Amino acid sequence: VKIAHFHPVVIAGGSGTRFWPLSRKGKPKQALALDGKQTMVQQAVSRLTPLAASSKFLVITGEAMAPVIRRQLKSLKPQQIIAEPAARNTAPAIGLAAHILLRQDPDAVIGVFPADHTIADKKKFHAAIQRAVRLAQNGEHVVVIGIPPDRPDTGYGYIEHGKALEPGLFLVRRFTEKPDVATAQQFLNAGNFAWNGGMFFWTARTLVKALYEHLPETSALLAKIAATHGSAKFARTFKSLYPKCQNISIDYAVMEPRSRAGEDASKIFSIHGDFGWNDLGTWDALHQHRTNTSVADSDGNVLESAGSYTLESRGNFVHAPGKFVAVVGLDNVVVVETEDALLITTRDRSQDVGKIVQHLSVKKKTKLV
Amino acid sequence: VKIAHFHPVVIAGGSGTRFWPLSRKGKPKQALALDGKQTMVQQAVSRLTPLAASSKFLVITGEAMAPVIRRQLKSLKPQQIIAEPAARNTAPAIGLAAHILLRQDPDAVIGVFPADHTIADKKKFHAAIQRAVRLAQNGEHVVVIGIPPDRPDTGYGYIEHGKALEPGLFLVRRFTEKPDVATAQQFLNAGNFAWNGGMFFWTARTLVKALYEHLPETSALLAKIAATHGSAKFARTFKSLYPKCQNISIDYAVMEPRSRAGEDASKIFSIHGDFGWNDLGTWDALHQHRTNTSVADSDGNVLESAGSYTLESRGNFVHAPGKFVAVVGLDNVVVVETEDALLITTRDRSQDVGKIVQHLSVKKKTKLV
Repeated sequence: VKIAHFHPVVIAGGSGTRFWPLSRKGKPKQALALDGKQTMVQQAVSRLTPLAASSKFLVITGEAMAPVIRRQLKSLKPQQIIAEPAARNTAPAIGLAAHILLRQDPDAVIGVFPADHTIADKKKFHAAIQRAVRLAQNGEHVVVIGIPPDRPDTGYGYIEHGKALEPGLFLVRRFTEKPDVATAQQFLNAGNFAWNGGMFFWTARTLVKALYEHLPETSALLAKIAATHGSAKFARTFKSLYPKCQNISIDYAVMEPRSRAGEDASKIFSIHGDFGWNDLGTWDALHQHRTNTSVADSDGNVLESAGSYTLESRGNFVHAPGKFVAVVGLDNVVVVETEDALLITTRDRSQDVGKIVQHLSVKKKTKLV
Repeated sequence: VKIAHFHPVVIAGGSGTRFWPLSRKGKPKQALALDGKQTMVQQAVSRLTPLAASSKFLVITGEAMAPVIRRQLKSLKPQQIIAEPAARNTAPAIGLAAHILLRQDPDAVIGVFPADHTIADKKKFHAAIQRAVRLAQNGEHVVVIGIPPDRPDTGYGYIEHGKALEPGLFLVRRFTEKPDVATAQQFLNAGNFAWNGGMFFWTARTLVKALYEHLPETSALLAKIAATHGSAKFARTFKSLYPKCQNISIDYAVMEPRSRAGEDASKIFSIHGDFGWNDLGTWDALHQHRTNTSVADSDGNVLESAGSYTLESRGNFVHAPGKFVAVVGLDNVVVVETEDALLITTRDRSQDVGKIVQHLSVKKKTKLV
């Protein structure tokens, strides 16, 4: 069922070095079909289309990857895909969307969705979104989705939950930045912390108001850009004004200051997001996700190949489509092959793949980055 | 310096499954450039050309790989490359060579050389061959090369040395078949055992005589085939008579029976073959050989690639020419890439690569075998 006035804003930014050698500068994680036949940005849009017509979407991306994203999202009109002329983090990106959507629909409710996550349970996801939009329609409220953590991950911001209002609905006490391991473990033990998955819901009106309060100069620039959206002047205005915006995240610019008013006054709500969220941050996370979605063999091997043979080998991830893959006597390794590169590492070390990209950048091997 | 009457007989047989996926049925180990730019059979011939003119060589191979071998040995005349119509092990192969060479040169001294070995020290190798040929020229003698063992390998036959005649020259007491690990360890501890590297030296006359004694029927067939060598009848005669020969190794058919006369009576000599012999039986052996010949990086990685980056990785072997290879946090793995296949294993398990070929044969994936 489509939700009236609901406008999904899909954020397809980032450089995606952690999926090297598959991901490259012009083809980041969001543009890859890491999980099934659709690319991640295609999946992000597809899983929301039961709730919102195509015409309601905005997708925000960077100039380098815009051509790929446009090719992958043919159901959207050109002006629905906004290619930032410079990276300015999430506050200006989401703020621009709010300014544009407020002009289109004074009652618009915005849902912000990163394009590089997977969701295992679509039904639960849709139910959570419906609940979030309903809450956000009260113009005072901001709604976030709290992902139940299953490990002391230091790669995410955490949301501290306060009072429970209903089952699975909490007042937010505090946003925290990425913690160290000890703190993350404390959060996990405490039980009232959730991962901040980057999904936000509020009316365009509330968001625009908040931006004028917290980022007045940036907000004024965004208003000028938004006024030209859909016209011939847009590209030029965007290019000249957007780089002047503050480079800051929406969490840091708006959510944290607002949360300092205390859980009762700030009116920030968190919905329990128990729908199999996975941000696929590494090859290891992809292996885990594909194991969870039953793509692995009985030994936990995920082999993307044209046929395979394994002998005493468990928990491996191999991407070599078109080749016959044989694995003998190895556990938990990651091997990824492309036309020009071959990655060999372990699932444990797959967060270090970024170091390879760094090395290649330093050595100016630009074709490989 | 060329040695008068010396005729190298190069044995390029075998199926070479242990270097899958690089080796295939029609392209076995001998036909691969595993070590440098020349293929192994090219190296076998090249390293002997200082001692024998091209016209003195015979190369014995199988029908399946003959086209590849012929292309690789363009300096030899067609009749110098003999393609067996059926595999009959080494006794008929070497016996046929002896019959052919005896007709060409009554004083021929034959040296038998497997085509799939590497030799690190060519000077020492040449000195050993000169010594062997000189000894073999006395028609009663048979000379073998004893490779000093450095581990209790169960993949080789062993030669038990008796009396030392000169430094590095022994009477042979006994030939033993491939031992079990405990026996191999005993041999290693005893100190008077050497590996049988498959190199034999004797006059063509002595060998033909020995064959008539030990394999009379096979020898009669070989004489008939040899009588047609170089004529238009050869191919047909070879094809009709060779399959009737006994399927037996030269060790089992001739050397072992002869050695039973006792070390003094049998007149079998063994020369200490301390010239860096390596039979390259596995990817691990190739890794070791290339490390010994200084091809590895300072962490013991042998990477055949178009550029590479390693981080906390030691002792790996990667064959992916044309690709940038990155290895992070892994030791002692073997990764070999071809156009249609990808092998992922460890150096320890590289002797199990044959099991993959077995699997592919059973599954009738003939293109991959």
